[in-house]
Amino acid sequence: MQNFVFENPTKIVFGKDQIKKTGREVKKFGRKVLMVYGQGSIKKNGIYDRVIASLNEAGLQIVEFPGVRSNPVLSYALKGIDVAKREGVDVVLAVGGGSVMDTAKTIAVGAKTDDDVWDYFVFKKAVQGALPLLTVVTISASASEMNPAAVITKEEDAQKYSFRSPFAQPKTSILDPTALFTLSPAYSAYSAVDAIAHMLEPYFKNTEPNSLLQDRLVEGLVKTVMESAEAILKDPADYDARANMMWAAILGFNGMTTAGIGLIGLPAHMMEHAVSALYDIAHGAGLSITLPAWMSYIVGENPAKFARLARKLFGIEEKDDLKAGMAGIARLKEWFKSIGSPVSLGEAQIPEQDIGKIAENAYALSQLWGLSDYYTEEVITDILKLCK
Amino acid sequence: MQNFVFENPTKIVFGKDQIKKTGREVKKFGRKVLMVYGQGSIKKNGIYDRVIASLNEAGLQIVEFPGVRSNPVLSYALKGIDVAKREGVDVVLAVGGGSVMDTAKTIAVGAKTDDDVWDYFVFKKAVQGALPLLTVVTISASASEMNPAAVITKEEDAQKYSFRSPFAQPKTSILDPTALFTLSPAYSAYSAVDAIAHMLEPYFKNTEPNSLLQDRLVEGLVKTVMESAEAILKDPADYDARANMMWAAILGFNGMTTAGIGLIGLPAHMMEHAVSALYDIAHGAGLSITLPAWMSYIVGENPAKFARLARKLFGIEEKDDLKAGMAGIARLKEWFKSIGSPVSLGEAQIPEQDIGKIAENAYALSQLWGLSDYYTEEVITDILKLCK
Repeated sequence: MQNFVFENPTKIVFGKDQIKKTGREVKKFGRKVLMVYGQGSIKKNGIYDRVIASLNEAGLQIVEFPGVRSNPVLSYALKGIDVAKREGVDVVLAVGGGSVMDTAKTIAVGAKTDDDVWDYFVFKKAVQGALPLLTVVTISASASEMNPAAVITKEEDAQKYSFRSPFAQPKTSILDPTALFTLSPAYSAYSAVDAIAHMLEPYFKNTEPNSLLQDRLVEGLVKTVMESAEAILKDPADYDARANMMWAAILGFNGMTTAGIGLIGLPAHMMEHAVSALYDIAHGAGLSITLPAWMSYIVGENPAKFARLARKLFGIEEKDDLKAGMAGIARLKEWFKSIGSPVSLGEAQIPEQDIGKIAENAYALSQLWGLSDYYTEEVITDILKLCK
Repeated sequence: MQNFVFENPTKIVFGKDQIKKTGREVKKFGRKVLMVYGQGSIKKNGIYDRVIASLNEAGLQIVEFPGVRSNPVLSYALKGIDVAKREGVDVVLAVGGGSVMDTAKTIAVGAKTDDDVWDYFVFKKAVQGALPLLTVVTISASASEMNPAAVITKEEDAQKYSFRSPFAQPKTSILDPTALFTLSPAYSAYSAVDAIAHMLEPYFKNTEPNSLLQDRLVEGLVKTVMESAEAILKDPADYDARANMMWAAILGFNGMTTAGIGLIGLPAHMMEHAVSALYDIAHGAGLSITLPAWMSYIVGENPAKFARLARKLFGIEEKDDLKAGMAGIARLKEWFKSIGSPVSLGEAQIPEQDIGKIAENAYALSQLWGLSDYYTEEVITDILKLCK
């Protein structure tokens, strides 16, 4: 096992009817709150009313900042920073999924500085502080509710980049599985893909034979996500399935499963960021295209590990590791398809002749993330060619 | 899944050569530190020198409080509280295993109050504050380094009781697996037993069929603890085995595996507390006696769950759940024996005619812990009769 530091202070308030605690949790950090949310789905499903009622009950002043879209953009976060500064809010509350939470993180950080916040995303500067941030989660996939990362797209340069800072870690996150009951089948599926990718990318990186602890955690969590997704597609209001998905998505990307396996890279995410920076595609939908392609590209480097997963997840009995590993990838791809997530660029209406452009975009991120020794533009192109 | 609140802010600094960071971590919380440790093993294996050097390098004033023994006693913690108050220390540093950490927690809490600290153990009063506490871990089993609990024995009444308070949660814990290289085979085995009991007691309590997430985490962690213990007994300086044991013991009792399964009881621990309150036996050695007996007593209530574990851990192929479950218990007992931990009262030189006395002691704890509806003195007696 490799050396690590693990610290994850976010308080998780989990379960039925917990949204009513939002006000009292927010109040611990200030009196005037910026409430960040998306395109209005929370008004349709009643979450908005429940959050507002709780904030009012706690006697908080509320400034609303709605309108965050999926694949959130920098320009909109900058508007939020202006509002936060102008209104002098003490605390930021995100009510939404990864896009809303990551926009809220960017606002929380930007409200405390005159820096160009994009400098944090391109690693030019380190975050020095942030307004306290809390979340009420309505899409469970990114684990942003219990981690220090945020992803935003600078639209004019088509750069979908990210930063990590302990200052951006939510203080408290409120997770009510019933808030997910109205999430569409498509987004429920994309959420599962995202959660699985967060775990499998580091999993295949972990090649230490004596470090099975993390592998076993991942195998149990991935299995749980898959089962839960299947149950959710049958019954969107299956409480236990939504709850398991919600908690598994967090445990799979809050630092626990990767503590001890060294620096992690997220190459399938890297390529997906390029895809969704250039095309309006849901993050999870992009990942179900790039993840199997990436797995197919590297399976020969560590067939035993791929075979292990194939046997654990799909009960594949093939004795030859490489064959078993490849069969496992095929099964995962079929499974993505079965839940309604695309597995090829074509299915997502992305023309194959654009591969060069996507590779170029991804390679810039590969360099920024320090992955470019392996993930050259040529390698990325070869992987993207497998996205079919 | 049931509602829960999860919050575990302890910072874990894990790995080779991390003890040198002790000083800088302690310094964040004060300038004068009470260093609590045990019977001197840390002087033999060099940990003492490394900790002192780091504290000195950080320019800290050190007050030493050595001499904590295993199955730590209240009277000695009270002495520590006196020293902490008299010296006006700002921060407490535990260097040791569960006994040292739990004594240090009691001191940290007691130093900030004029309450009789025993009132916290008998749930008469709630803890209102504590000096900041840090730990350097030399025995890995209790997970005290990342949880809010402490266990202490009031010797005159033979009461081995515990309290839990977020104030007692360590701020930072430093875990260097090499610090465990000189731990005896016996204590290495007892550590494994303790870690396993922490996980299996709630595991068998979790009977929700749709809440497999926590079960899978436990199964992976228990398997890891067992493999690691076997490797450690072959080679006490097996770094990866020590590291896996160290991290698995924490993840198995830091609140993660039990979040979502409701209130947990620890009946095998309850009975072991009675055993080690009355006899000088290592906690893990007591648990390898009470845990299989308790499992045998309740196997009929939930045979499917016992069968699941038997199949996962030992590959038992028996189709009948009750038979498979019972075979699993027998295999676990054999395994405890194989690593050198006793599985009967007789092996621990505890006379069978004392069962009445042990049951009476355990029943008092059963009442205090709110388990007495099920765990009456008669039931406890029946379970203790299986301890052979």
